Amino acid sequence: MRAERALRDTHIRLAHGNGGRMMRELVDGIFVPALANPLLDPRVDAVALPCEPGQQLVVTTDGFTVQPLEFPGGNIGSLAVHGTVNDLAVCGATARYLTLGVILEEGLEVALLRRVVDALAAAARACKVSVVAGDTKVVGRGECDGIYLTVTGIGFRPSGGTLGLASVMAGDSVLVSGPVGDHGAAVILARQEFGLHGELASDAASVMPQARVLMGIPGLRFMRDPTRGGLATVAHEIARATGLAIHLDEARIPVRTAVRSVCELLGFDPMYLACEGRLVAVLAPQAAEAALDALRAFAPQAALIGTVRPGPPLVELATAFGGRRLLDELDDDPLPRIC
Amino acid sequence: MRAERALRDTHIRLAHGNGGRMMRELVDGIFVPALANPLLDPRVDAVALPCEPGQQLVVTTDGFTVQPLEFPGGNIGSLAVHGTVNDLAVCGATARYLTLGVILEEGLEVALLRRVVDALAAAARACKVSVVAGDTKVVGRGECDGIYLTVTGIGFRPSGGTLGLASVMAGDSVLVSGPVGDHGAAVILARQEFGLHGELASDAASVMPQARVLMGIPGLRFMRDPTRGGLATVAHEIARATGLAIHLDEARIPVRTAVRSVCELLGFDPMYLACEGRLVAVLAPQAAEAALDALRAFAPQAALIGTVRPGPPLVELATAFGGRRLLDELDDDPLPRIC
Repeated sequence: MRAERALRDTHIRLAHGNGGRMMRELVDGIFVPALANPLLDPRVDAVALPCEPGQQLVVTTDGFTVQPLEFPGGNIGSLAVHGTVNDLAVCGATARYLTLGVILEEGLEVALLRRVVDALAAAARACKVSVVAGDTKVVGRGECDGIYLTVTGIGFRPSGGTLGLASVMAGDSVLVSGPVGDHGAAVILARQEFGLHGELASDAASVMPQARVLMGIPGLRFMRDPTRGGLATVAHEIARATGLAIHLDEARIPVRTAVRSVCELLGFDPMYLACEGRLVAVLAPQAAEAALDALRAFAPQAALIGTVRPGPPLVELATAFGGRRLLDELDDDPLPRIC
Repeated sequence: MRAERALRDTHIRLAHGNGGRMMRELVDGIFVPALANPLLDPRVDAVALPCEPGQQLVVTTDGFTVQPLEFPGGNIGSLAVHGTVNDLAVCGATARYLTLGVILEEGLEVALLRRVVDALAAAARACKVSVVAGDTKVVGRGECDGIYLTVTGIGFRPSGGTLGLASVMAGDSVLVSGPVGDHGAAVILARQEFGLHGELASDAASVMPQARVLMGIPGLRFMRDPTRGGLATVAHEIARATGLAIHLDEARIPVRTAVRSVCELLGFDPMYLACEGRLVAVLAPQAAEAALDALRAFAPQAALIGTVRPGPPLVELATAFGGRRLLDELDDDPLPRIC
C-alpha cells in the first residue's frame, strides 16, 4: 500500500475525479482539513444526523455558478454558505448542516480551489454549520467554468409556526434589512473590470441574526432573501401568491450611491439586482416599528419600504419624484451567473 | 399581471435562469408537473419535513455529470435518483426525500431536458422518494455540457445499528449482488459510437430491495455500491479503513460477456468499471450462505466473491488461471464523467 500523500498537483486533472488515489488526495488534501468536524467522514456514502426533538426538519438546496469565482466581498465558497443558510433563515429555521456538491473543471488552479474551500469553511464556522457530506466531480476543459457548487442546507425550526406567504394580508408592512443591489452591482463590476469597485463590495453574509430577531416579533408574516431578480422579484412572488398588490416607496428603499452609479452607467435597475445578505420581511402594521427597532441593532439601514394593499396583484413603486411606476416581473433580462 | 403561460421555447436560454418570468415558466412547465407531490412548492425557499420518531436522519449528496446524457439503460435523470437512493440503501437507510440542483447549458434542447426530468420522476416514483426542493441555474454555451445534476438524498434508519467499516473483521465473506461493470461499459460504448451496444445496458437501478433483505441477516457488517472506480475501489476502501487484506476470486466474480468484450477491445479492466445497480456486502462467514439465498430472489447472479483476511491492507485477485495478482488502487486512469 502506498502511504497517504499530500496533494502535489498545482492544477486539477481529470483523474482527480476518478474515485481512486488522486481523488482521495484531493479530498484529503483540501476538503477534509478545511471542513473537519466530527460528523464528516470521507470514507462513507452518507451521514447520520441527530433529529432534534420537538423541531421540524427544514431542507433547502441551491446551486452556485457565480462568475467571476472571486469578487469584492467574497467568493463562490462563502457565497454558497451564506446563500444556503439564508434560505433556511427566512423560513424561520436555524441552519445546522450542509452538504457540498462540487464540479471542477480540468485545469483549475488548485490554489484557487483552496481559497474557495477555505472561505467556505470560514463562512460555515461563522454561521455555526457543519459540512457533513460531499461529492466531487471533475469535467473536462470547457465543460464547466472553473467551479460550480451545489449546497443543500439542513436546519430545524419549532413545529407549528404560521410564517409563510399564506399569512400575508392587506395592510401589512414591508421591510428590508439594508441597502439593495450590492451583490449584483459588485459582481457586474468585477466582471467588467472597470476598476470602479473600490468602494463596492457584495453584501453576501448570513441573515440568520436578523431573521432570529424578527422571529421574536409577534405579527411577523413572511420573510424572503432577495437574491436573483432582487427586491422587485420578491415583491412579485408575494403579489402572485396572495393576489394582493405590493406598494413600494422608492424614497425609503436604501440603495448605496455606488450601486446607483453602476446602475446608471450600465443600464440596470437596482430594484432587480441581487442581494446576498438582506432580507425582506412582511409584518402586521402594528408590529413594523418594533421590528425596525429590533433589526437596527444588527442592520442600521433597515427600512420600512412599503405596504401590502388589496389586489389586483401588481408591484407599484411610488417614485422619488412623486410619480408611480409599475415594476414588471423580470422578463428576458438575463444577468446570468450572478450567484 | 401576465397570465401563467406554458413554456414555449424549444431551447434553454440564459433568461431561464434569471429568477423572473421565464425561470418560472421553465420550473412550472417542466419540473413541477413531472415531480409534483404534496411537499414540493416552487414558491418557497425551503421545505419542512417530518422527522420520524425513533429513526436516525441519514443524508447523502452526489453530483451527476455523465456523458452522454442518455445511454442504454437510462439517462442522467434516472441515474441521479438511483445513485442517490443507493448511497442511502447501503447505509441501511430507507430513502424518502430528494433535493435536486440543476445546472443547464444555454442552447440545451427543452425536449431532452423533458426526457431527463421525466425519467428522474419515474425513477423517484419507483423508489418511493419525493423531490421536495430544487434549484435551477443556467450558464452560457460552453460553460457546462448540457445538464449537470446534484442530488441530496434524505432517509431514515433505525437508531443503534453497527453497519459500517468498523464492524468488518478478518474471516468475513465478501458478496456482490450481480455482474460488475455494466454501467461503465455501457457508457463507454455509448460514447464511442461503435454500434456495439445492442446487448449492453447500464445496470443503473435501485439496490434498496437487496439492501433491505441483507439488513435482515444477522452478521451483516458493511455494504457499499461500487460506482466510480468499481469493485476494486470498494475493496481498497475496505482494506484502507480496516488494515485488512481483501482476497477476491476472479472465477466467482460475475462479469457479462459483453462487458468482458468491451474491456478486451478497449483496454479496460472490469474490476475498475462503475456499476450503478449493484452492491458489495461484507458478512460474517456463517451468514454468507443465508445472505446469498435471500439475495438471489432479487438478484439471481449474486455471488460470494471473496474473503477478508489478516493484513497488510491490500487487494489480491486469485486469477481464473490459478495465479494471483494485486489490484492496485485506481491511479491516473481517468474515466471522466462516467456518472
